[in-house]
Order: sequence, then C-alpha cells, then structure tokens
Amino acid sequence: MKREITREYISELRSLIEAKDDAATLMMMEDLHPADIAEIYIELSMNEAKYLFMLLDPETASDALVELEEDDREKFLKALPPETIANQFIYHMDSDDAADVIGDMSEEVQQEVLQHIDDVEQAGDIVDLLAYDEDTAGGLMAKELIKVYENWSLTTCLREMRRQAEDVDELYYIYVVDDDNILKGMLSLKALLLADSKSLIKDVYKTGAKSVNTETPSEEVAQIMEKYDLVVLPVIDSIGRLMGRITIDDIVDVIRDEAEKDYQMASGIAGDVETTDSPIRLSRARLPWLIIGLLGGIFVAAVIGNFEEDLKINPEMAFFIPLIAAMAGNVGIQSSAIIVQGLANNSLGLESTFKKLVKEFVGAVFNGLILSSLLFGYNILFSGSLALTYTVSISLFVVIIFAALFGTMIPLMLNRLKLDPALATGPFITTTNDIMGLFIYFLTGRILYEIIQVV
Amino acid sequence: MKREITREYISELRSLIEAKDDAATLMMMEDLHPADIAEIYIELSMNEAKYLFMLLDPETASDALVELEEDDREKFLKALPPETIANQFIYHMDSDDAADVIGDMSEEVQQEVLQHIDDVEQAGDIVDLLAYDEDTAGGLMAKELIKVYENWSLTTCLREMRRQAEDVDELYYIYVVDDDNILKGMLSLKALLLADSKSLIKDVYKTGAKSVNTETPSEEVAQIMEKYDLVVLPVIDSIGRLMGRITIDDIVDVIRDEAEKDYQMASGIAGDVETTDSPIRLSRARLPWLIIGLLGGIFVAAVIGNFEEDLKINPEMAFFIPLIAAMAGNVGIQSSAIIVQGLANNSLGLESTFKKLVKEFVGAVFNGLILSSLLFGYNILFSGSLALTYTVSISLFVVIIFAALFGTMIPLMLNRLKLDPALATGPFITTTNDIMGLFIYFLTGRILYEIIQVV
Repeated sequence: MKREITREYISELRSLIEAKDDAATLMMMEDLHPADIAEIYIELSMNEAKYLFMLLDPETASDALVELEEDDREKFLKALPPETIANQFIYHMDSDDAADVIGDMSEEVQQEVLQHIDDVEQAGDIVDLLAYDEDTAGGLMAKELIKVYENWSLTTCLREMRRQAEDVDELYYIYVVDDDNILKGMLSLKALLLADSKSLIKDVYKTGAKSVNTETPSEEVAQIMEKYDLVVLPVIDSIGRLMGRITIDDIVDVIRDEAEKDYQMASGIAGDVETTDSPIRLSRARLPWLIIGLLGGIFVAAVIGNFEEDLKINPEMAFFIPLIAAMAGNVGIQSSAIIVQGLANNSLGLESTFKKLVKEFVGAVFNGLILSSLLFGYNILFSGSLALTYTVSISLFVVIIFAALFGTMIPLMLNRLKLDPALATGPFITTTNDIMGLFIYFLTGRILYEIIQVV
Repeated sequence: MKREITREYISELRSLIEAKDDAATLMMMEDLHPADIAEIYIELSMNEAKYLFMLLDPETASDALVELEEDDREKFLKALPPETIANQFIYHMDSDDAADVIGDMSEEVQQEVLQHIDDVEQAGDIVDLLAYDEDTAGGLMAKELIKVYENWSLTTCLREMRRQAEDVDELYYIYVVDDDNILKGMLSLKALLLADSKSLIKDVYKTGAKSVNTETPSEEVAQIMEKYDLVVLPVIDSIGRLMGRITIDDIVDVIRDEAEKDYQMASGIAGDVETTDSPIRLSRARLPWLIIGLLGGIFVAAVIGNFEEDLKINPEMAFFIPLIAAMAGNVGIQSSAIIVQGLANNSLGLESTFKKLVKEFVGAVFNGLILSSLLFGYNILFSGSLALTYTVSISLFVVIIFAALFGTMIPLMLNRLKLDPALATGPFITTTNDIMGLFIYFLTGRILYEIIQVV
C-alpha cells in the first residue's frame, strides 16, 4: 500500500501533471501523508507544484504546506494571490501553523492575507499569536484546546467536547479552568473514559499540571517537555490564565533545530542549509566562517613572521607547526563541546565553574603527559635534534592545558553574557587556539634552543 | 509550590538524611517528579541515595531510577541485592524500562534478578524484549498496550479497557487486531469518546496505521515518528502481528542521543560524557581522537620534512602553514557536516551523488576565488615575496576545492559501507585534509619559486 517516493514515481507524476490528467494525478497522491507530499514538492517545478497544490483537497494541501521547509514555503506563497492563501490554505490550518506561515510574510502581505480570512475568530487567534516572539512558548502554542469547568459533570463535559472537538486535531488532554480562565489542572482522556459518568470534573482531574508562561524561551519549553515526558504542555499568561497549548511534535522540531544549529555552528556553517539548496546558497552559508578563518590564518602568519630568524636557523621548527595548531584546536573544541552540550540539555548540574576548571586542568595534565610522552618517544627515535624534541613535547603539554581551560571558559562566559555558547565551538576557538598555541611553541623553541646550545 | 533544586535544597536534604529524619525527608520530596529526583540523585553519596530510594514509595523510586543516566543507574544497582532490584524496582516498571534496566546488567545478575520477579507474565515480557537489539524498534517498544477486536461493540471495548488500563500509563490510542493478533488499525481515545456508544469498533477505527517492524533501526523509527508527527507507533513482526508500541518520549531521547553522538563525533569526543563525570573519564573519552590527531601531526611533520631544503631557502613559506591547514580542515568539516546532517534527518532528497559533487565543486570554486583573492590582496600589500604571494593564493584555491570534494565524498562513502558517516567529521578529516593541503602547498611552492626565479 505504502508508496515509495522514487525517481520513477516523481517522473510519472510530473508527466501526469504535464498532461493535466487530474484523475490519474489524484490517484497517485491517494493515501499520501501531507509530509510525503512536502517531500514530493521539492522535486517539482513551481508551476507543477502550484497545479498540484490547487488540485489536492484544501485540507491536505494546507497540511502539506505546513510541512514544507520555511524558504520553500515562502517562495511558493509569493506566487499566489493573498485571497487564495487565505481561503485555500490558512483557513484549514491550526492557529499555530497559520501564525507561523503568516509570520514569515512581509508586513504588507500579512495584512492583505489577514483581511481575506472570513472567520473572525480565526483571524483574531492568528493576530494574537503573531504578537509573540517565535522563540517563546507563545510563539509555539496553538489556541485550539478544550476547556471545561471543575463543577461540570462528565456528561456536560462530553457534550461540550463533542461541540469543540472538531477544531482540535490531536486531543489527549482537556484543560480545567475557573470562571476567570485561570488554569486549575488537566484531565486525560484516559481518566475521562474510565471515570464513572456520574462524577464531576473536580473528582477526577489532576491539579498542579506543569505549565509554562507565554514568555518562556522555546529551549526551556523543550527541556521541560523532554524531562517530564509530556505530550502536551499548557501555556499560561503572567496571572495564570490559560492561553494555549504546545504539542510534542512542535517540540521535537525545536529539539532537532537546536541540535542542528549547534552542530552547524561547530562545523562552521552559518544559517540553515540543506544539501538540496543551490550551490550559491550553500557557499554563502560557509563564507563568513571561512573569512574569519582566513583572517585568523593571516594573523597567525604575522605571529610566525616574528620568528623568521629562528626558522632560518632551525627550519625543522616548521615541521611541527601543523601538529601544535591541530592539537590546540582539537583540545579546545573537545572542551567547548562538552560545555555547549551540557548547557543545551541542561545537564551541567550544580557544580561550580571553578570545580569544572579544576577538573579540566587535571584531565588536561593527564592527557598532556600521555601525548607529550608519545611525541617525545617518537622524536628521540627519529628526529636528529634534541632541542626540537624538548621544544615540541614541552610546548605541546603547555598548549593542551591552555586550550582545555580556554575551551571550558569561553562558552561559559558567552552563556553568562547571554550570547550563544556554541559560538565558541566554531572556527573561532580553533583560530584563537592556533594563535595561542603557536606563540607558545615558538617562544618555548627560542628559549630551549638557547639553553640546549649553551649546555 | 514548585521546588527549585538549589545547593541549599540539597544540603538541607542531606542533613535530614544524615539525621535519619524520615518524615521530614519525605516531606521535602513531596510532589517532586521522578525526573527531579533523578537530578537530586547525582548530588548525593551512594549511601544517601540508597537510603532515599528505599524510603520513597517504590513506584516513585522506580520511575526515578529509570530517569537516571545509564552509568549512574548501573553503579546504584550494583550496590543492591537482586531480590531488592526485582521486588522494589523492576516490579513497578513498564516492560520497556524494565528490559532497559536489566539489559545493562551482567548476564549473571540478569538471571538472578529475573528469577526473583514473581509476576511470570512480566518476567516473560522482559525476556521477550531482551532478545531485541537495543537500537531497533523491538528494543524501544513496550509490551503494555490495549488491544481490541474489530467486531466488538464500544461497550465491550470500554469494559476491556477498564480491565487493562491500569497497566498502561500513557494511553492515547488503542489497537485493533484480528483473531491472529494481526494489526488492523488504531482507534484514538478521542474517536472513542466522541463515537455513539452503540457502534462497533469496526465502524469507528482507522485502518492503515503507520507501523514499524521489530527489526527497524531506531533512527528510522525516529524519522518516521518525527515526519508524521506521531505520539505512538505500533510495532509488528514480519507477518504483521502486533508486538508492542513505541511512545514519543522514548523517541525524543533517541533524537537527542543521535544529535549528541554526531556532535561529539564532530568535536572529537568518543563515548557519552557529561561535565559531571570524573576528570579521568572525561580525559579517556578524548584521548583516542587526540592520539589520532597526534599521529596525523607526526605524519604531516614527515611530509613537511621532505621540503626542508625549500624551507631553508624560503623560511617565509612556514608562515602560511597554519592558514592552509586550517582552511583545508574548515572547508572539509563544513562539507561533511552538511552531508552527515542530511543523512541524519533524511533530507538528502533524490539528488544523485554526482550532482552533489558538481554542486560542491561549483560552490568551492566560488568560495575559493573569493578567499584566494582576499589573501592575494593582503600579500601583495604586506608581503615582500611575489613567489610566496602566488604560491599561497593558488594553493589555497586548489586546497579548498579538494577539501570540499573530499568532505562530501567521504561521509557518503562511509554511509554506503554501512559505517557511521559522522566518523568523517572528527579529527580524521581534519588530519587527512592537513596532509593533502600542505602537500599541495609545498609542491605549488617548489614549482612557483622556480618559475618566478627564472622569470
């Protein structure tokens, strides 16, 4: 039954679209999930996609539109008149998706689309949601939920549910509020089904539900839902009134995006790119970090330039430049990565920064001793110069300790300054550590060559 | 109401535990979620933790135990007799958690614990689950679920649910099977609540539910649940019989773990470590990649050693060694990271490898031209040597193209060989690119210095 989206499938679909064979096209799309349709979208030309999305039933087309990558969706919607966007697509979306889609449009288009939404309640919900920052609980939540009052009977509750449930797709919990809309607690559908139908809501619902404020940052929302294994999380305002609810599928996206962002930052990629993007877009995302790397490299060249005389006398000093630079970079990134990850999944514990630095120091001394000894052994055996042997091993040891401490401190500092700690893991720290490491290396060399020559 | 777990809280708790003040200790733990108790655990000594976990009601203590980090839990359970593990903890766990906990024990202890489980059905479920690889759907699923038959009435269904529901914590869907236990479809509690109580299951349930096989790898399970926004996913065997169900909270952990693993690999950290681990453990996780980096550095030193004569005559060649090495590494990691991420979130699309390489090539030429020109400009202004100026810019251009192509190809190759593509992003690719990059640099230098001298 399940269709595989293969190249053959796509080319068959495209020829059906070209032939304008509506019936056969729809047959090929039958039973496809909106997420599959979104995958097909990226293989089509704009005209094919437009044709297909207008042919599909509006409910499915709207769901597929929500599943598109942000920039694909923006491009697609730019090709449509505001009226079509409002009636064919927005009308069929949940409030949170509608707000996300509209939020990406220019101020002007937003207004036009909103004016074409006939359902005033829906338009109102969307305008409310647009007011929140998209990286907060308010920006993630949907307005669709089922509210009941504690003194209702289960029968009243069920009647109300039947009335409201059509609007709510994913329904696992209903929310209990008082007359002022203050959130009192939650009632699972399971509890509702298993309860005696003569009981009152107040006999069966659970108080003290976890909730977040509209202003709570989305990473914190993700941490809470992940930690407490929640499927939905109610959102309240500053005086406790129920404003909306966040579902786990949106949080899964937040977790994935966060992880990808940190990963891309560590790999020196700016902005969200995919292999399917154009070469120019792919290049542009990399250029900023590469330019920083280039400037760093030029700076390092200037630092080494100060030791040109030493290099003229002892050209073998150059052999180990890449080793020192690479080790400084590697150690620094390792240390930063552990901190960045600890900050991201909130697992740093209650340990003080000082204790962390002491641990890093102990660990770095340990690793430094092992690595420097290995290198010493190699150079004693294969390198002719005793001065070089000492210089390389001693400076490697010092560099490892410095790089580990820097790597630990910098992300913690950035975090305290409310900057993204992941900044520390990119080419930035590699470059800083290169400079520091090579300076230590050449300085050690100058001193040791002197001493060993004198001896 | 919500307690913050602060250092003060912990020290108060520890003194209550030391004073063996059970009532006050329990009062401090009141209303805490098991996940909070797991956070408290890591701040306690083993004896304190043992005391606390035996004091708590077994249900809560078992849930908290499940929330612990794997290595913390192992250490804790090693301090307890098998009988206590079975009766106090395993007995209160869902089958999937019980299997995870028991699966981490030695063969011998496993047997002892299993023998102490009095509930034969539970012991059977655990043994069944232990047979699956932990990185497959079978290893993730729980056996607890509610099954109904299509020809049942909703009244029978509700009666059966009341009987079975106590075993099932998170209940959002019930599963419809035939007489041979073949999965036919799913029924949401929402549909059940809203349906006419006189209808039959077959009138209201949805056929064609997404499902996975017990052997499906856990990353694929995660991709499916993420793509289709599922909260639960049924697991079937090779002939379609319902074996269990996977809940989204377990998948959130898989997604987080996958992302962390890739991130740690890219940062050169082997194995799962946290800042709260001991310095030795932290160091050990880093040493393997550092040793590879060291060996790479030694190899690079040997490569440069071949150009000692050139360096003696033109020591300024050494200045740009770090720049070339760093740029080769950065470009390579950027290219690999995009591929690794595309493989992880299944967004590579249908594009062929050849097309990807062509795109990388175009992008690399573009970035290479920009960066080489910048560097050329700098060197024309500030470096005395025309030969060096040409050498550095031309080799940088060539190196960027090579590094981009390598970075793209290597993870794709690893993936085709069924190896982890993330291996490509660690110090491995940096080192390979260093070697390749510096060889190109010195070779270009030898040729150009000759030409320019002749000219």
